[in-house]
Amino acid sequence: MRLMTLRTAAGTRAARVEGEHAVEIDAPDVGALLADPGWRARAEAADGIRHELTGADVAPVVPRPGKILCVGLNYRTHILEMGRDLPAHPTLFAKFPEALIGPGDPVRLDTEAEAVDWEAELAVVVGAPVRRAGEDDAAAAIAGFAVLNDVTMRGWQYRTTQWLQGKTFEATTPLGPELVTPDELPGGVRPALDLRCTVDGETVQSANTADLVFDPVALVAYISTILTLNPGDVIATGTPGGVGHARKPPRYLRDGVVLGTEIQLLGSQHNPVRAGAAIPA
Amino acid sequence: MRLMTLRTAAGTRAARVEGEHAVEIDAPDVGALLADPGWRARAEAADGIRHELTGADVAPVVPRPGKILCVGLNYRTHILEMGRDLPAHPTLFAKFPEALIGPGDPVRLDTEAEAVDWEAELAVVVGAPVRRAGEDDAAAAIAGFAVLNDVTMRGWQYRTTQWLQGKTFEATTPLGPELVTPDELPGGVRPALDLRCTVDGETVQSANTADLVFDPVALVAYISTILTLNPGDVIATGTPGGVGHARKPPRYLRDGVVLGTEIQLLGSQHNPVRAGAAIPA
Repeated sequence: MRLMTLRTAAGTRAARVEGEHAVEIDAPDVGALLADPGWRARAEAADGIRHELTGADVAPVVPRPGKILCVGLNYRTHILEMGRDLPAHPTLFAKFPEALIGPGDPVRLDTEAEAVDWEAELAVVVGAPVRRAGEDDAAAAIAGFAVLNDVTMRGWQYRTTQWLQGKTFEATTPLGPELVTPDELPGGVRPALDLRCTVDGETVQSANTADLVFDPVALVAYISTILTLNPGDVIATGTPGGVGHARKPPRYLRDGVVLGTEIQLLGSQHNPVRAGAAIPA
Repeated sequence: MRLMTLRTAAGTRAARVEGEHAVEIDAPDVGALLADPGWRARAEAADGIRHELTGADVAPVVPRPGKILCVGLNYRTHILEMGRDLPAHPTLFAKFPEALIGPGDPVRLDTEAEAVDWEAELAVVVGAPVRRAGEDDAAAAIAGFAVLNDVTMRGWQYRTTQWLQGKTFEATTPLGPELVTPDELPGGVRPALDLRCTVDGETVQSANTADLVFDPVALVAYISTILTLNPGDVIATGTPGGVGHARKPPRYLRDGVVLGTEIQLLGSQHNPVRAGAAIPA
């Protein structure tokens, strides 16, 4: 099953994708839908208003996750090619929901943005509360997967030792278009999917999600040791090599370019990067 | 004005403190109250059920903040005595709402807890949406202040470069008992208050909040450059010297001790530390 959150004249609505259409589900967004333990049956049975996907206005698939956890270094090939050892534990940091945008929305560069970089990532969306999970419970708690780009202000990320401030600028992180359930994907809850990031159509990152050191099931289990993961929570699983900051010379996103992020079977994002005027206080 | 969130038979309720009593406000908690732009007048006028404060069951003053931002090194005296330069920018990291507990609730030590440490802190509670604020707007967006202890699993904090995983264990961070508005405090929105942390009654941290490098107004302004701060959001402003991990030998919180955290005019917390049985998945 494939789910999305549409912006309609009546506000956002969860919808099920059927071929070239999206069929409304009686829930304001996919996050609200997932909070219902019976979400799968409810989504499958829904028979609401039908929208053509062409030209649809698509919101972040979960517009207001309770938590967004992000993973640092997590692509095996990239870690090894940098001459580092594989990590014993995942590096975790946070992002706040204000950062999220839809898969076609502009990435906003405020006047303070410096050294704005791309990070194409596979996102895990949680579908059931889970704490102190073993592998089976962790796998069962995964609702599905989505595309995310952890767009990063490198200048702010490295102002201090803690990355948060470079990772959570408002309106910079596309999430979506779709949540795709594991049964639709090769590898299921440990999907093996080609991932690609482009800038004005030129490929800048290319990898396969089978290369993750900590796969989605391992990440859900690990994080659930710390605290409860709840429906709608999002885990961004990390990015492969090819980011702009590591290039010589470095290369960054600038006003006017189009950032493309795509994962096989999960869909694609096309986000124009736009210098935003200062927002009045 | 002094506000708190009480646990009652009918669920949590926001309340205004009057002497030895708390008077219910028609809002489920202080976070929900603050979401109403008219919260001050509404809280002042409320005349609901009266509770004796003695024996009241007090929830985290904002039980589910949209965001919790924490500040690293921020006490001038402590930074200088460690021989470091004062930082140019605040170090920011996150905590998730699942970490919060009330001012008398047990701090839960899961079986994985290692090297559990105290960090008494002044918390800022946001009372209005604010983005790209100058000093005046930042000051006006502060609803008030509360006591917080950023209890930290040092083992997990230092597993990787990013501190999040040691900072957000479920049911470990007391917040409250009260939100006190700036007009009640010497220094107002830059309050000068004695802060103290105790373990079984022995003082382990002692400082004054006037010693902050980045004061509450500066922190609100800085963070609002990155993203919108919203009503109910919490900023934990950092801890002074005296944490257990820096002692020789190190000293940590163990099952059975009582953690005390108090700030002049803001009230005190007394949290028993309890080894928790493993929670079934």
